[in-house]
Amino acid sequence: MIAIIKQGVNDNQIENLINWLESQNLSVHLSKGEYTTILGLVGDTSKIDIELLENLEIVEKVKRISEPFKSANRKFHPNDSIIDVSGVKIGGGNFAIIAGPCSVESEEQIIEIAKSVKNSGATLLRGGAFKPRTSPYDFQGLQADGLELLKLAKKETGMPIVTEIMNANHLPLFDDVDLIQVGARNMQNFELLKELGKTKKPVLLKRGLANTMKECLMSAEYIMAGGNENIILCERGIRTFETYTRNTLDLAAVPMLKELSHLPIIVDPSHACGVSRLVKPMALAATASGADGLMIEVHNDPRNALCDGAQSLTPEQFDDVASKVKTLMEVL
Amino acid sequence: MIAIIKQGVNDNQIENLINWLESQNLSVHLSKGEYTTILGLVGDTSKIDIELLENLEIVEKVKRISEPFKSANRKFHPNDSIIDVSGVKIGGGNFAIIAGPCSVESEEQIIEIAKSVKNSGATLLRGGAFKPRTSPYDFQGLQADGLELLKLAKKETGMPIVTEIMNANHLPLFDDVDLIQVGARNMQNFELLKELGKTKKPVLLKRGLANTMKECLMSAEYIMAGGNENIILCERGIRTFETYTRNTLDLAAVPMLKELSHLPIIVDPSHACGVSRLVKPMALAATASGADGLMIEVHNDPRNALCDGAQSLTPEQFDDVASKVKTLMEVL
Amino acid sequence: MIAIIKQGVNDNQIENLINWLESQNLSVHLSKGEYTTILGLVGDTSKIDIELLENLEIVEKVKRISEPFKSANRKFHPNDSIIDVSGVKIGGGNFAIIAGPCSVESEEQIIEIAKSVKNSGATLLRGGAFKPRTSPYDFQGLQADGLELLKLAKKETGMPIVTEIMNANHLPLFDDVDLIQVGARNMQNFELLKELGKTKKPVLLKRGLANTMKECLMSAEYIMAGGNENIILCERGIRTFETYTRNTLDLAAVPMLKELSHLPIIVDPSHACGVSRLVKPMALAATASGADGLMIEVHNDPRNALCDGAQSLTPEQFDDVASKVKTLMEVL
Amino acid sequence: MIAIIKQGVNDNQIENLINWLESQNLSVHLSKGEYTTILGLVGDTSKIDIELLENLEIVEKVKRISEPFKSANRKFHPNDSIIDVSGVKIGGGNFAIIAGPCSVESEEQIIEIAKSVKNSGATLLRGGAFKPRTSPYDFQGLQADGLELLKLAKKETGMPIVTEIMNANHLPLFDDVDLIQVGARNMQNFELLKELGKTKKPVLLKRGLANTMKECLMSAEYIMAGGNENIILCERGIRTFETYTRNTLDLAAVPMLKELSHLPIIVDPSHACGVSRLVKPMALAATASGADGLMIEVHNDPRNALCDGAQSLTPEQFDDVASKVKTLMEVL
Repeated sequence: MIAIIKQGVNDNQIENLINWLESQNLSVHLSKGEYTTILGLVGDTSKIDIELLENLEIVEKVKRISEPFKSANRKFHPNDSIIDVSGVKIGGGNFAIIAGPCSVESEEQIIEIAKSVKNSGATLLRGGAFKPRTSPYDFQGLQADGLELLKLAKKETGMPIVTEIMNANHLPLFDDVDLIQVGARNMQNFELLKELGKTKKPVLLKRGLANTMKECLMSAEYIMAGGNENIILCERGIRTFETYTRNTLDLAAVPMLKELSHLPIIVDPSHACGVSRLVKPMALAATASGADGLMIEVHNDPRNALCDGAQSLTPEQFDDVASKVKTLMEVL
Repeated sequence: MIAIIKQGVNDNQIENLINWLESQNLSVHLSKGEYTTILGLVGDTSKIDIELLENLEIVEKVKRISEPFKSANRKFHPNDSIIDVSGVKIGGGNFAIIAGPCSVESEEQIIEIAKSVKNSGATLLRGGAFKPRTSPYDFQGLQADGLELLKLAKKETGMPIVTEIMNANHLPLFDDVDLIQVGARNMQNFELLKELGKTKKPVLLKRGLANTMKECLMSAEYIMAGGNENIILCERGIRTFETYTRNTLDLAAVPMLKELSHLPIIVDPSHACGVSRLVKPMALAATASGADGLMIEVHNDPRNALCDGAQSLTPEQFDDVASKVKTLMEVL
Repeated sequence: MIAIIKQGVNDNQIENLINWLESQNLSVHLSKGEYTTILGLVGDTSKIDIELLENLEIVEKVKRISEPFKSANRKFHPNDSIIDVSGVKIGGGNFAIIAGPCSVESEEQIIEIAKSVKNSGATLLRGGAFKPRTSPYDFQGLQADGLELLKLAKKETGMPIVTEIMNANHLPLFDDVDLIQVGARNMQNFELLKELGKTKKPVLLKRGLANTMKECLMSAEYIMAGGNENIILCERGIRTFETYTRNTLDLAAVPMLKELSHLPIIVDPSHACGVSRLVKPMALAATASGADGLMIEVHNDPRNALCDGAQSLTPEQFDDVASKVKTLMEVL
Repeated sequence: MIAIIKQGVNDNQIENLINWLESQNLSVHLSKGEYTTILGLVGDTSKIDIELLENLEIVEKVKRISEPFKSANRKFHPNDSIIDVSGVKIGGGNFAIIAGPCSVESEEQIIEIAKSVKNSGATLLRGGAFKPRTSPYDFQGLQADGLELLKLAKKETGMPIVTEIMNANHLPLFDDVDLIQVGARNMQNFELLKELGKTKKPVLLKRGLANTMKECLMSAEYIMAGGNENIILCERGIRTFETYTRNTLDLAAVPMLKELSHLPIIVDPSHACGVSRLVKPMALAATASGADGLMIEVHNDPRNALCDGAQSLTPEQFDDVASKVKTLMEVL
């Protein structure tokens, strides 16, 4: 950590600051220049509140040199983490395909889709029960009933299930859910993250639509600081000025997050683009970028889907994508 | 609402679609062109799920003409809403200054600041008890104890209090809070919004840092759809590529939101800029833009503040800002 | 094109507007609703200035339904364009790898790199002679001398050369350049585009760092409107709030631009990321997304490169990337 | 400037680097930590190419502490610059109102508007002759003829004139133009900036729509490095995800740029918002934020304007804005 001292500060004030910093178990190196004096702070700065330092009257600016996340940091955990989701491994060379409808709509629907995507090679089943919708007048999901239908589909097919949580109070309902998804809008719902940190449940943490990679890792850190290290990150597009696609899929986040962190990262091309025609090229691109898995929306009747049908693949389209992804994995 | 039909669709398919739309209580106007056929849908389209329509195989695109928010829409409520916060009116010509520290730290601190900002002209006292922080290692607020200290300050000064809620389960603790703040990171925490819709408490809804004005109004709609119409909007900066300021304060949102909606809107220049030196010019600019109030961070000892000290004014600086704002209000 | 009429406009005014529009060779369809009246304008609206219409007192808003670009539009040119760059074909299934240093530095450097990348499978040689740099104090390129060195390398290896133009006055110097690059900062330098439209030279048009896909196609349209249809588009990252990468590579632009336009599109992962470690995964991802080619920076001594060394691959690294890309192309 | 050394680099390598840096006339301070070793570089680092350093194999990252702009930097020029535009002073307490049509259309039009805005208090006349338009099919301005009409209006009213240049070859035509505008799309047209640096003409440099404040100052630096210090900056909105306004007016840029630089800064609320209804509140807000002037579009017949009529004020509306701005200036 670097603290830049304001111009015109006298030596006595600087010495006082150095003494105070040393009392915080940091060692301090002083560099004095004609225009700028800087202090290099060495030691465990990961738990220091950067704004506290910036408040000091004689300090102009503080810059972190090392990353503020620790449990998620690859520097202290060089090997890839492998997350075990009820027997399905993700990360460290284990590639997972999560597929299913945006919303669970009926027993027939979810079971039909589950069987179909399993046949095509999906290893986990997704389906929304609690749905975050921008408008209060839009369909909000089947909620607890949707979870029951997911469990039926799991029983029928043996596939572990993935679904989104929007409220920590619902946690007891998620006992039989294998991988709990935190959606993009809740990536910084710190109260929810803390509660998930108290469980041992695998968590699928989606990057917020205007959140940096660093903030995404800090949100993972919230869960890990509570003791739960079973986290899978998910890139699903960020918000930019472009309007032809719903969001801008940031695939460079895949190799970058893997460099910064040991956690696995998967990609959701369906939500990123919002257009089903782009799902296949983006699924292949994500695979080629080194992702540990994909999450793809599949609906047996996209035209009549209750939510996000425009971005869903038909089972036939998904089969094609899954087979191309497999071919790609083999040559990579 | 406009539905654009794909090229090459036959007349029979279009007729079927028109029949279906008319069965949804919409009247439909057809325009056929050489390259494009469009349907104009007329009626109450505000409760229609736009994605449902876009799913239809023959539809290329759907565009809304009217706004998807209804309760918050000025078209159906031409007069300014005036929100009464325990006797302090906001909106419709009533200008409010909310001031106080980022975090409540101690009884002495909050009471000293409360007295001081009241003297300078503030009409509501702010103070964070539950603090959303990017890092789990940063100070998280005094929580329930902080709320107690706020109430003491209210008792001492008579000022209504404003503080942020992060978890709907905490609502019982907020019984004596006069204006409940929903922070930027929770603007789309729909579960929280729904719970606030069930109360009659005035809500200060901050625009999310990557949310459009429309989404902000849709979040207000979530609360209003539940029956609570006591909402004050707050512009606090959006996330852009610029790095000299923490966020980019979008002051055009003030007149634009006032045109779209009857709800009052205030501005928080402290969080927007993240630099105390910019608070005064931005407070004056916000006032000149037509805002219904300001929310400003004030700390008696910014250097030693536990949170966001870099953006806090001293009581003397705040007194200067408040007096300049008053002068400005008089000439506007 | 849709024109939405303001509330409260009388029938007479609307009739006058319809008469005027019909006199512009458009046919007009009227849809009247309780809150909204819209006019559907049918005919060749691609050359209509949308702001002219919006100026009319009775018009609330105008929305385009069809795209404002015509020559670049796939609707009117369903087959892929194939651009011939001095014998090297790009587009329509022809994949090109453009490689070379950020800046041409010396005869030895450019010839050594040219031979090496040719051996690895590159089909065109890039090298900057005129360099756009944010700071006037940074190295500005060898300029005309750099062009001469590129031509020597072309003579030596037979590879067509690609280099950036910054000033239409330099066009005579570019006579022997095979593919003229318009950089991201000049994508809306309309004066330069018009001059390039008067030539028949193939143009590599890079998307601006804050430009939409539509604007990119409109810039292509500027060149095409002048009579030059030899255009290759290039995605090279857009500017977002993320700071770990220099820009955010928008790979969904590849399939989306190919859907909107018949022009080939290549990807520049080096400039997009600004970090050489990300070039390989992003080159593979771009290939998998369906790009028609890649542009990659290679330097024989990245540590001592005069420009952008941080994003350059060594010849060995490039050889590895090129061979992986080839394998990928075979299975796709 | 700070250079962070990679982990695992041996002392010998570091010593070599220090020797090399010292040979570049920098003095170097070394701070060694358990995880991080940093070098503090002291001296004139403003002319050092940051990427050169980052290329070195043993260097992980380089961060600037001082700003890379020098001539524009307030640190080396503490007093406000005052720019004299043919007798009209701007900056250092001198507030200017620039007004006129988006495009010059005819002699009658420009003279009528010029007289009218002069009466209302404008001190400079603007009018577009060369127009940068996104589409090649939109009106491109009267070009050289437009410049002639502007000069007639200047002769008639005595107001200095402001108009945009798009091509350095046109400079001879701009001999009688008092203030040459560089538009947002050309802010990084470095060839144009260099040519303007060779003149002594006052330049109005508009911030690019996706450019940071730092880049804006670096573009000013391009002109100043050539010897022309007569520069006025202009904030005119940046590109964000918001769609209700054309751009997002970044008013915090006003006090921030004034802190960083001694150059005057004005605000263009017309282009920023793209909606005439927002011009008045944003003009007032800009004035309150401390701007040195305003640039406002005025048209005698906005409905029939050939360009950007939607954002133009009528002369009556402008008169109202100008008088309110004056009142505001008096109390500030």
